Amino acid sequence: MSLMLAEIEQQPEAIEKTIRRESKKIARFAAAIKDAHPRLIVLVARGSSDNAALFGRYILEMTTGIPVSLAAPAVHTLYKSKLDLKDSLVIGISQSGEGEDINLVLENSKRCGATTLAITNEAGSTMAGLADETFLIHAGREKSVAATKTYTGQLLIFHLLANALSLGKQRMEVERLPDLAAESLKLKPQVEEMVERYAFMENCVVVGRGLNYANAYEFAIKLMETCYVVAERFSGADFLHGPIAMVDRGFPVFIFAPPGPTLKGMKELVAKLSGIGAETIVISSEPSVLDQGSRGLRIPQRIEEMLTPIPYIIPAQLFAALLAKTKGLSPDKPRSLSKVTKTV
Amino acid sequence: MSLMLAEIEQQPEAIEKTIRRESKKIARFAAAIKDAHPRLIVLVARGSSDNAALFGRYILEMTTGIPVSLAAPAVHTLYKSKLDLKDSLVIGISQSGEGEDINLVLENSKRCGATTLAITNEAGSTMAGLADETFLIHAGREKSVAATKTYTGQLLIFHLLANALSLGKQRMEVERLPDLAAESLKLKPQVEEMVERYAFMENCVVVGRGLNYANAYEFAIKLMETCYVVAERFSGADFLHGPIAMVDRGFPVFIFAPPGPTLKGMKELVAKLSGIGAETIVISSEPSVLDQGSRGLRIPQRIEEMLTPIPYIIPAQLFAALLAKTKGLSPDKPRSLSKVTKTV
Repeated sequence: MSLMLAEIEQQPEAIEKTIRRESKKIARFAAAIKDAHPRLIVLVARGSSDNAALFGRYILEMTTGIPVSLAAPAVHTLYKSKLDLKDSLVIGISQSGEGEDINLVLENSKRCGATTLAITNEAGSTMAGLADETFLIHAGREKSVAATKTYTGQLLIFHLLANALSLGKQRMEVERLPDLAAESLKLKPQVEEMVERYAFMENCVVVGRGLNYANAYEFAIKLMETCYVVAERFSGADFLHGPIAMVDRGFPVFIFAPPGPTLKGMKELVAKLSGIGAETIVISSEPSVLDQGSRGLRIPQRIEEMLTPIPYIIPAQLFAALLAKTKGLSPDKPRSLSKVTKTV
Repeated sequence: MSLMLAEIEQQPEAIEKTIRRESKKIARFAAAIKDAHPRLIVLVARGSSDNAALFGRYILEMTTGIPVSLAAPAVHTLYKSKLDLKDSLVIGISQSGEGEDINLVLENSKRCGATTLAITNEAGSTMAGLADETFLIHAGREKSVAATKTYTGQLLIFHLLANALSLGKQRMEVERLPDLAAESLKLKPQVEEMVERYAFMENCVVVGRGLNYANAYEFAIKLMETCYVVAERFSGADFLHGPIAMVDRGFPVFIFAPPGPTLKGMKELVAKLSGIGAETIVISSEPSVLDQGSRGLRIPQRIEEMLTPIPYIIPAQLFAALLAKTKGLSPDKPRSLSKVTKTV
């Protein structure tokens, strides 16, 4: 079994451990931050961590009302600009904590007046050392180059932080996440059968919206790095603003369609794509959209939308790991990549 | 000739007219805003306008020091969240001014305490009516579905706004832009010869960084909507965090490589891609990086980086329009699209 598959299967345990070990620290931090009333939250990351940040952006804006910005690292690292970050909270997200550019942005943000926070899987990392506070993902060392358990660990930390900052108004039942993740893992035999069809897939599109927009980015990056598929990623709305023109008969489009306010638009998109003759592969608990698609990955139970990102990405992670296997590729050691990428 | 090509050629004139007609209004607005000292600028857009907003993000942060966020429209439209946007400036960018979701975000932002601004090509549009202030692109009606002259018009407005807000500290010589755009148009015969090679290209990647990151998105969307090429878009740094694994011998990668602090990283990327055997097509004035690439589109003169986005996107627009032509497609009427896309 690949390291990637093994690490995918460790997720329920990692989630349970992270909830148990970090919740109190996050609650204390949130209480202190709320008194300071941050006017802006800035998220800084690269790769899969940046995809997790996309989720952080939605959940934090929705639950706290504080505007969130995804940083452009080059503004800090290459252009050496000074931003007015007084009363801002700047959060670096990095599996290894050794992303040089992320750490430079945190340092510059401190100089610009911000409070800094690190979200990482490595307690002894450079990032943990330089940030004012660190929230740890307790996933154990991630050995596969393709991030899986640290991605869901980062999503989880954002759940916990949003719960702690939202004053309990929109509390998410995060204690359910280990079981929901375990339920999703049971889809493995079905995914294993399904990937055969896509052994020679060269291009595809992945679509998600709102709270599952991050998952579209994450599934696409997994397909790119472990299966060498040219996988585009879009929000359902952006996809309609131009890119849908490239979709022809038989073109594969993967769609995250959880219940909630994004579902209506996703159903309209699936209908439009079916009209073009595209192949739609729907990830959802909802029969109404699963029945519309060409194929489906059925999430076993209907889950409140805010809790869907973790259980919905797991079948996609399985899909990428198993598709790589059937293509004869090692998902643990993608060509041209190493585990820690140095960019400035 | 396609409408798209005709509109590409109208750009020097449109830029000149917009500078002449809007500069004073923008200066007055900026003077008023500076007194109010906005703590945050939020940009809201879809499609090509959202690509222009990506440039706005960099240039405004770099020249004013005010943090900038690219809005997630769904937070406002689907999830109906209230954000704390007191003392914030929210800017809607839309060619037609009829993007329903963008207008909903502007309305919600007003209710959340923000000052709102519209950037549009249509003075009588819904967006112009509801925003506190409107800056117009004087490009004449855009008839091609593929946006070209309104994209550069939006870039220009961000140049003018950055100049006005930066207190003259980093003043860009925008008066040079009509001539620089005209110089880039002279590349047409060279591009026309070049596109023949790519008639059967099905996938590619477009890379840009910093001030030209927006152009990577814009070139990719043009290739998707007018040529039906599956064109991925990345910053040079994000590309190295996973997606580069999908690049194999002969895979085409288009690279914006203007002079300035991003050049070193772009040269390293071209070297890495050459090592893999990829086909690199470099858009630059700089012999040092042009010589490294497989092929190049040479920008006639070295331009200060801050002024490069408009003259650098023009050969890419020409490339998409002429590639569509050689593929036997009409770039003015992409399949599955209409000029105004309705999404919420």
